[in-house]
Amino acid sequence: MTSTDPVKPVATSAEALDPVALATALIRAPSVTPQAQAALDIVADLLADAGYRVERLTFDTGGVPVVNLYARIGTDGPNLCFAGHVDVVPVGDAARWSHGPFSGEIAGGRLFGRGAVDMKGAVAAFLAAALRHGQPRKGSLSFLITGDEEGPALDGTVKVVEWLKAKGETLDHCVLGEPTNPAVLGEVFKIGRRGSLSGVVRVQGVQGHVAYPHLADNPVPRLVRLLSGLIAAPLDAGSAFFPPSNLELVSVDVGNTAFNVIPAEATGRFNVRFNDHFSLASLKADIRRRLDAAGEPYDLTFPPGASESFITAPGPFVDLVAGAVEAVTGRRPEASTSGGTSDARFIKDLCPVVEFGLVGQTMHKVDEATSVRDLQDLSTIYGEIITRYFAHFS
Amino acid sequence: MTSTDPVKPVATSAEALDPVALATALIRAPSVTPQAQAALDIVADLLADAGYRVERLTFDTGGVPVVNLYARIGTDGPNLCFAGHVDVVPVGDAARWSHGPFSGEIAGGRLFGRGAVDMKGAVAAFLAAALRHGQPRKGSLSFLITGDEEGPALDGTVKVVEWLKAKGETLDHCVLGEPTNPAVLGEVFKIGRRGSLSGVVRVQGVQGHVAYPHLADNPVPRLVRLLSGLIAAPLDAGSAFFPPSNLELVSVDVGNTAFNVIPAEATGRFNVRFNDHFSLASLKADIRRRLDAAGEPYDLTFPPGASESFITAPGPFVDLVAGAVEAVTGRRPEASTSGGTSDARFIKDLCPVVEFGLVGQTMHKVDEATSVRDLQDLSTIYGEIITRYFAHFS
Repeated sequence: MTSTDPVKPVATSAEALDPVALATALIRAPSVTPQAQAALDIVADLLADAGYRVERLTFDTGGVPVVNLYARIGTDGPNLCFAGHVDVVPVGDAARWSHGPFSGEIAGGRLFGRGAVDMKGAVAAFLAAALRHGQPRKGSLSFLITGDEEGPALDGTVKVVEWLKAKGETLDHCVLGEPTNPAVLGEVFKIGRRGSLSGVVRVQGVQGHVAYPHLADNPVPRLVRLLSGLIAAPLDAGSAFFPPSNLELVSVDVGNTAFNVIPAEATGRFNVRFNDHFSLASLKADIRRRLDAAGEPYDLTFPPGASESFITAPGPFVDLVAGAVEAVTGRRPEASTSGGTSDARFIKDLCPVVEFGLVGQTMHKVDEATSVRDLQDLSTIYGEIITRYFAHFS
Repeated sequence: MTSTDPVKPVATSAEALDPVALATALIRAPSVTPQAQAALDIVADLLADAGYRVERLTFDTGGVPVVNLYARIGTDGPNLCFAGHVDVVPVGDAARWSHGPFSGEIAGGRLFGRGAVDMKGAVAAFLAAALRHGQPRKGSLSFLITGDEEGPALDGTVKVVEWLKAKGETLDHCVLGEPTNPAVLGEVFKIGRRGSLSGVVRVQGVQGHVAYPHLADNPVPRLVRLLSGLIAAPLDAGSAFFPPSNLELVSVDVGNTAFNVIPAEATGRFNVRFNDHFSLASLKADIRRRLDAAGEPYDLTFPPGASESFITAPGPFVDLVAGAVEAVTGRRPEASTSGGTSDARFIKDLCPVVEFGLVGQTMHKVDEATSVRDLQDLSTIYGEIITRYFAHFS
């Protein structure tokens, strides 16, 4: 970057090394999903200026063009990748924010703004750490930044991963910067995620009058029996790295308001968050077994969007990340697999992936904000991960 | 009636004694519920001309004025009442009728039209029989005719019964002319009806994300457990005069289409048709016991419209009706308590009530029609009931 370019929000190389100044600049570049161009440009320009080969990748299968970025410095392995997103969720009622959601104001030791925690803060922290570190003597540093994590996620990381595979690009390990800490920086990092499977159970009957049930065939008690069987016993007792798999009945629907009418159809909907005890295939089979046991005819469909569980098994990389967190915060983070899905579900097809970021309490809420101190510490942790990684794996 | 009145649809006293001519006249006076004035006028005029004291009773608590009629000839007891309705259900798609729904056309030995079976035919059959019989030497004949049986039934028989009670009017026995025969005249008469109770079970929970079930409280599995308990065992095994009580789950509703959301509320709806094993009070207690056994908190409400079961116990009056049916048709009718509710549920508070009418196959359908022969036979049966009644009870 040059000092003669007035539009660049980070004016000096000193500022580019400061995660707080960088995060402020990213927050001030509004990027409500999927319109992430402004924030992505800041990242792309800084990486290009620092000698990274920057690939801008635009996909639009969802109908709206989505910008993404893959950037790498170095040509040999190992390749340590930082993954994240610069799109943010909508601000909600901006009037309810005590500081403008795109102001990037600091007050009481906290940096306010949409994305401060999820996850422009982490992007800034890693970017500053990488720029401070420079090109590894042996090995590569890379960035996979998407503009479609908070939206439908059709044209984001999933597409970049396909592109990387097609290109034959090797990622050896990845750190994803999602907020992982419930309350205090250093509590928790994530080494896997549960899979997710949704299902719809439909039961057909024959409509009729309640006074003449022999002329009708009521699907509602049959649905109740099917769903009773589905939830009767736990799916499993958990595994080495995961809590027990969990099935939630999220809806039952008939829509009949006439008390004298036996309805013709009843529907149940469920979602399972499952651990490595199951694959999608074995879980579907288990669900069918449970439903079959009720002895009632039913129709079962699985809507799109299911994902396998994954685990990055404990070992040198996981230990390295935990050690870096402990070295800076004094806390040995708990290796967790809890919570919802993240883009790690796509990256895990390329390489082992671990997630560590800021404290998530304010994410997606009014007055999203991160402790400035946490932001600085996170950048130090990421720097420690980079240093230790190339010392160990190169 | 006088021959100089050109608007009267039944022109001669000979025609008034003919149930087929009378039924035709009633069908040709459209009276889709609750606009029953035209048909009720025919009945009122004929009864007044025959010496009955006719009371027209208009009620409108439901927002639309509804006409009803109570008419009596004679002042002493016993008072044998015929009860029925002249309102009819809508015709549906009139173009699908092979004969106009208000044409009263006869074809193939059948009289077509809305109300032919349910129940202008029976009203005409009893009216003709009563006019043929004339005033009893001892005792009274009476008519309770409503224009609100097929509608909400708020301003019909229930209000006339209140009015009769307030007036101190005594009814000793009643014949209700609802269609009772499944296929052949003489098969079935009804000596009671099951009661009806509807209920709504609501379960409250706490909304949340399926990935964090410990932060939410899912009401759906709790509703499934409650409803499982409700339907686990039969309510009873039937009684001397009734089939087993029957509970139907008519709906379950949440309305949540998001697979990643645990909903805040779930609702189940049911209807019970119950026999004389239960009163409404004991049935409600039994339902609460079954729900309580699930150990889940719930809210239970009973919408308006519940009715007690009732039975007109076998004895001289029931035997008399069965004997009259057998004398004319050669069939001893089965004493049944099956089917939906009827206005008998209100009349049973005044006196024993038995139901016998035409063959119900076409009721509420396109091309509603009665066999002309059945109509003549039904009038003969009603005449036989009147004769035997005053011979036995006077």
